[in-house]
Amino acid sequence: MKKLAVVAFGGNALLRGDQKGTIDEQEANAYDTCLKLSYLVKKDYNLVITHGNGPQVGNILLQNVAGAKMFGIPEMPLDICGAYSQGFIGYILEQQMRNVLEERGLDRDVITIVTEVLVDKDDPAFKKPTKPIGPYYTKEETDAIIKETGFVFQEDPRGRGFRRIVASPVPYKIANRHSISKLARDGQIVIAVGGGGIPVHYTRPNQLKGIESVIDKDLASSLLAVQIQADEFMILTDVPKVYVNFRKPNEKALDMVSVDEAKFYLKEGQFTDGSMAPKVRACIQFVELSGKEAIITEVSRLGKEGSGTRFVLS
Amino acid sequence: MKKLAVVAFGGNALLRGDQKGTIDEQEANAYDTCLKLSYLVKKDYNLVITHGNGPQVGNILLQNVAGAKMFGIPEMPLDICGAYSQGFIGYILEQQMRNVLEERGLDRDVITIVTEVLVDKDDPAFKKPTKPIGPYYTKEETDAIIKETGFVFQEDPRGRGFRRIVASPVPYKIANRHSISKLARDGQIVIAVGGGGIPVHYTRPNQLKGIESVIDKDLASSLLAVQIQADEFMILTDVPKVYVNFRKPNEKALDMVSVDEAKFYLKEGQFTDGSMAPKVRACIQFVELSGKEAIITEVSRLGKEGSGTRFVLS
Repeated sequence: MKKLAVVAFGGNALLRGDQKGTIDEQEANAYDTCLKLSYLVKKDYNLVITHGNGPQVGNILLQNVAGAKMFGIPEMPLDICGAYSQGFIGYILEQQMRNVLEERGLDRDVITIVTEVLVDKDDPAFKKPTKPIGPYYTKEETDAIIKETGFVFQEDPRGRGFRRIVASPVPYKIANRHSISKLARDGQIVIAVGGGGIPVHYTRPNQLKGIESVIDKDLASSLLAVQIQADEFMILTDVPKVYVNFRKPNEKALDMVSVDEAKFYLKEGQFTDGSMAPKVRACIQFVELSGKEAIITEVSRLGKEGSGTRFVLS
Repeated sequence: MKKLAVVAFGGNALLRGDQKGTIDEQEANAYDTCLKLSYLVKKDYNLVITHGNGPQVGNILLQNVAGAKMFGIPEMPLDICGAYSQGFIGYILEQQMRNVLEERGLDRDVITIVTEVLVDKDDPAFKKPTKPIGPYYTKEETDAIIKETGFVFQEDPRGRGFRRIVASPVPYKIANRHSISKLARDGQIVIAVGGGGIPVHYTRPNQLKGIESVIDKDLASSLLAVQIQADEFMILTDVPKVYVNFRKPNEKALDMVSVDEAKFYLKEGQFTDGSMAPKVRACIQFVELSGKEAIITEVSRLGKEGSGTRFVLS
């Protein structure tokens, strides 16, 4: 039996901070990422790939704002912008993965699933939005938008203006999880849960509706890994390992941590909030609920002996 | 054994000409369409749903133009805009289909596949672009864009300016056709080949690349129906039947036509080019290649006795 792995990486693996985000740049980055992921295909893993969408959905939100201003095109809510980004990123990843597989003589099909993820309307996160999204606005623009929509805004500490913030609710069920599992175990490389999935909730009993929020992509990916009984959960980053006392004289790279140790370090504030902390939390969730191991590792060192930080039950 | 049907409908079923295209409008239209499609689920069909994206991708192209002008966001090529639209439309259709099924007590899962469709770079269509897309430009804007990109433009006969035209190549292979078939035969309602699919071709041997063009959605849907050995192919429209001598004193509704009759009427110019002619061609393709029947029918009369125009081999 082949092992089934869920591998998550960030949207910035496809659109780096120093890039404008042309399609050529993003395709080249997608190719590089897929080349590294092909190591797992060679190792005969069954594979589900999940990805972030931060920089891409940021651009899509701006395109929406501009389209409304210049041409009067109705602005789409956040769930639709997320759906745009799933189609876009899924497509370029699928295409570059097909190209890499072909070059390497690896005979696998690739499939992209648009993925809805269920969240709870009563999640306390909706009372306390934390996740900044979209463009910066002036005070006047912000006031006008608030009046019209009731959106919540936050002033940028670096003085770039005001930015909308939305809730980041906890995902509890991945739609299509059974199909994702089946397709992946059938040998297909499945691309799913893009950008943490499109957040939906039940309004009238059993009527689904999109809800303006952003699900943490690592947490959604970890949940998927649990719900499809994956054998391994991997998060790819741009640092070789997880560190404590990061960038201090007593900095220490972690080779292996237990769930209890990881929780202790989290409480100590060892991991940055928008970056390593959610990754560590996602790994803890997978290890606790599945009893199996999770790993955070640098994409370029994927599968290399001794690379990354392994999370174990105890 | 359940029958497998491929059902195609236009993007204007979700965004009507008299609408602005707010998300509420499009969701309500998606719900209505899914309600009508649920008749086929009740009749115990296995189902693949395909859809157009004309009005939606038109808006997405405008959002791209506006995003570039206002915020300097790199404009995405047509294949990426198509991928945006597949994510978007697939998501709202999937969601509303889930809602309809739940209300009606129909126990089926729904899945959306981002779909690439292969075309041939040497297709003569690329020498003679015919399909207008995106916004209207002034003569000056047009000249500047042509200089920068080499795009082909056409003056609007109604004086609205200049509009880009792209090729409409013949599709020859649907990516993921095996998975689409498997999922549908497994009872899933599969949404695929949105907007005729994302057109891709081989550049270097066996390296896939998007290509700026628009595949006719009826033709791509018919090809999918052939390639997954569907039992029936249906195209939904807003007229009850196909007519000859349409809106003339000798107008005649067609109940059943053979492939030869249909070809004869096509040659006579009985069917309008951007509307009924491609639908008839798609039906001819399905009937000729599969030996089975195709039907063009009004969405609201779906499955009603004696409704629609049936296409038969002879």
